[in-house]
Amino acid sequence: MRALSRRARSRRESIGFVPTMGALHAGHVSLLERARAGHDRVAASIFVNPLQFGPREDFSRYPRPLERDVRLCRAAGVDWLFLPTARALYPPGSTIRVAPGPLGSRFEGAVRPGHFAGVLTVVLKLLHIVEPDTLVLGQKDAQQAVLVGGMIRDLDLPTRLDVAPTVREADGLALSSRNAYLNPEERARAAGLHTALVAGRAAARAGAREAVKIAAAARIALRLTARPDAVDYLALVDARTLEATRKLDGRRALLIAAIRIGRTRLIDNLVVAR
Amino acid sequence: MRALSRRARSRRESIGFVPTMGALHAGHVSLLERARAGHDRVAASIFVNPLQFGPREDFSRYPRPLERDVRLCRAAGVDWLFLPTARALYPPGSTIRVAPGPLGSRFEGAVRPGHFAGVLTVVLKLLHIVEPDTLVLGQKDAQQAVLVGGMIRDLDLPTRLDVAPTVREADGLALSSRNAYLNPEERARAAGLHTALVAGRAAARAGAREAVKIAAAARIALRLTARPDAVDYLALVDARTLEATRKLDGRRALLIAAIRIGRTRLIDNLVVAR
Repeated sequence: MRALSRRARSRRESIGFVPTMGALHAGHVSLLERARAGHDRVAASIFVNPLQFGPREDFSRYPRPLERDVRLCRAAGVDWLFLPTARALYPPGSTIRVAPGPLGSRFEGAVRPGHFAGVLTVVLKLLHIVEPDTLVLGQKDAQQAVLVGGMIRDLDLPTRLDVAPTVREADGLALSSRNAYLNPEERARAAGLHTALVAGRAAARAGAREAVKIAAAARIALRLTARPDAVDYLALVDARTLEATRKLDGRRALLIAAIRIGRTRLIDNLVVAR
Repeated sequence: MRALSRRARSRRESIGFVPTMGALHAGHVSLLERARAGHDRVAASIFVNPLQFGPREDFSRYPRPLERDVRLCRAAGVDWLFLPTARALYPPGSTIRVAPGPLGSRFEGAVRPGHFAGVLTVVLKLLHIVEPDTLVLGQKDAQQAVLVGGMIRDLDLPTRLDVAPTVREADGLALSSRNAYLNPEERARAAGLHTALVAGRAAARAGAREAVKIAAAARIALRLTARPDAVDYLALVDARTLEATRKLDGRRALLIAAIRIGRTRLIDNLVVAR
């Protein structure tokens, strides 16, 4: 992989890179197309990273429709599809990791201990292997995007981060490989997560400034529409740092949320103030 | 720095890199000369890395003879001397670090909590900035060399590690910037650290196989010659992993030690079996 990338670079070709866990959907395809439009070469990876799954999470049942994924990559104009094995990326004795700092233990990290150490470690490894000019990630995983951006800055990586907008179903549900777990009744409720974030944004547009009021508007809509089995978090945060925001003050703010519907965890976010 | 390095690489020039904390001595010069001999271009850095010092350590009094260092680099044929500020490498809000794994908490890491997270983080940042083909480190800091080698392997860095032999004074004392802290009486005792490691190796050559026997021979010599104010550790370890070795078994083994003489900490190591 690195030899291919270096040969392209020596020909002054630019390289865009989209790391994925496979089970590709139109959200991933939009990332691949974005990389395709901006670069001479596009690399993608498919790797269901064991390091970012907790012991009671869905690592083994995570969908792995490899032939379909390969077709989608080819159709989207991917030049190089990197498919490492877990043994190649984590040989016995591999112990050195990336420590994500305080943000790694909040929100997703509070519910999924070790998740972001796993994410940042594998992204750093892939960046060292692929050596792209640009890394393309999706906005749906907002905390991941902020942490990877922080890693690029804090570790002086020579890569630019490009965060692409979330792709949604007609009813607003953010595309996610985990949507495949939902039964029809759960799928209908799942759209309520986006509806709730829109309700929070509507409250802000109607003049609400305090986070508690905006979150309350979202929470009421969430209970009515998604009827979640659990709300892991629902918070108004600074879009750049993901620090909790008490009041809109002119900085770009995001409403972020994670809920459970049945056995499935869903996350989403929406810009409330820009 | 990266632009210079990339321009050289685009001309197919190879790059050797020697990171230092300055206060250069003949040990550093040997690393620079080794990089010089094997590469088209040589980069060196001087940065007293606050992240690898504990709160009660010698960060502020660490020697910083910059003009002399620059002269020595020039004389050794350094092409690029990189002198970042702490604010440039650790701007406010910088929180993402390298986690060194279990070996980071043993030996030096047990005495200096956080030391190796600081070392690995700054080395990774410097590798991302300098992008060398080869990183040259000294064998005197054996645990640092093993951990950096582990980081290169575990994080798939595109850099080769070259570990150069320790340079010693005529009486055996390993060169170290911290030797400057020793008064004449302490300096005389300090040579006893090497004498003790040689005594351990002599015991092995005389047929001793068990770590306790080899370490005991070294410890007796240490008490007689160095008369240390403290022995932080003295251990027989596997040279590749730095795991404690109970008995010589054909694998390469190191005797590693850290002592205090007055206020000064000294470390050293010696190959006992190869």
